[in-house]
Amino acid sequence: MPLVRIELPQGLTPIEKQALSDSIHRAMVETVNVPEQDKFQIIREHEPADLVIAEEYLGIKHHGPTAIVQIFLNEGRSTALKQALYQRIAESFPQHTPIRIADVIINLVEVKKENWSFGNGLAQYAGQ
Amino acid sequence: MPLVRIELPQGLTPIEKQALSDSIHRAMVETVNVPEQDKFQIIREHEPADLVIAEEYLGIKHHGPTAIVQIFLNEGRSTALKQALYQRIAESFPQHTPIRIADVIINLVEVKKENWSFGNGLAQYAGQ
Amino acid sequence: MPLVRIELPQGLTPIEKQALSDSIHRAMVETVNVPEQDKFQIIREHEPADLVIAEEYLGIKHHGPTAIVQIFLNEGRSTALKQALYQRIAESFPQHTPIRIADVIINLVEVKKENWSFGNGLAQYAGQ
Repeated sequence: MPLVRIELPQGLTPIEKQALSDSIHRAMVETVNVPEQDKFQIIREHEPADLVIAEEYLGIKHHGPTAIVQIFLNEGRSTALKQALYQRIAESFPQHTPIRIADVIINLVEVKKENWSFGNGLAQYAGQ
Repeated sequence: MPLVRIELPQGLTPIEKQALSDSIHRAMVETVNVPEQDKFQIIREHEPADLVIAEEYLGIKHHGPTAIVQIFLNEGRSTALKQALYQRIAESFPQHTPIRIADVIINLVEVKKENWSFGNGLAQYAGQ
Repeated sequence: MPLVRIELPQGLTPIEKQALSDSIHRAMVETVNVPEQDKFQIIREHEPADLVIAEEYLGIKHHGPTAIVQIFLNEGRSTALKQALYQRIAESFPQHTPIRIADVIINLVEVKKENWSFGNGLAQYAGQ
């Protein structure tokens, strides 16, 4: 169910990208009950000028490469669960990339459960 | 009104991309009352490693090139209409591309009707 | 808070892209109470064939390069505020780019205030 759009700076190695993809998915499995097999991500790399980030917002300074993680998922998780997800993504963010956790921006977009088809033209969650 | 983000594997021909773009739009016109002229799509091609898909989810195995279709549209369609849309997209998916319908992932994101401007800075649907 | 996805035709100069990024942000600051420092944008350039736009919709003809601006922001703005935002984006759109304001498409996607983390794994708006 979740569809995750991961926007990254250019220049990460394939291994770094893989570690990052895996760590975000694992955080979702461990905190907001996403099934282990339910992994759907779109990764994009960007030139620095195309990820435009405030130099400072809410007391956090941004001066390095940035990751923006936008997660489309079913509605209904509590604020506490969402907070646990953000914290786990930050805690488990791969430490060998040049991206600091201060520069990991996360946005959730919630949808209804009948708003998904996972292949063959079926609405697998409808009626569940 | 709908804005459709179509994420594709690299290597499709322009004709295949055009057929795919047209077939998705036609499915929307025929099932969920999208006006014929109301076609707004963003197509992106990706390296295989950047479209990360579960090997198997909900009994469907994914092992070929994948298409992810994310549709932003006005709220209020019934579950039955959404199911008809998914089915029509799958049925009418161009058969001469390497993408199998098992590997077509669809996600709907619903918004209010005043959340659109189709040019000139006007909210064309507001107050309708 | 807002996350803005700006989809542009290829071929704009860095100065044009910068002016466009700035003018969209300024319109948000001036009409819908976005904090000055709250600037988060993802800019992408596309080949003409990959931004698929109706030739004419709702009486507006589209025949030039197109910009699609998708804004994810907190829910709750009135229709009047949204209309002011569209109008300001159009009015202040940089005039030295090849994009006409008839070809600026805007879509808003609203989310809850606890759906954001602006770094360090915290939900900065939760509980506000």
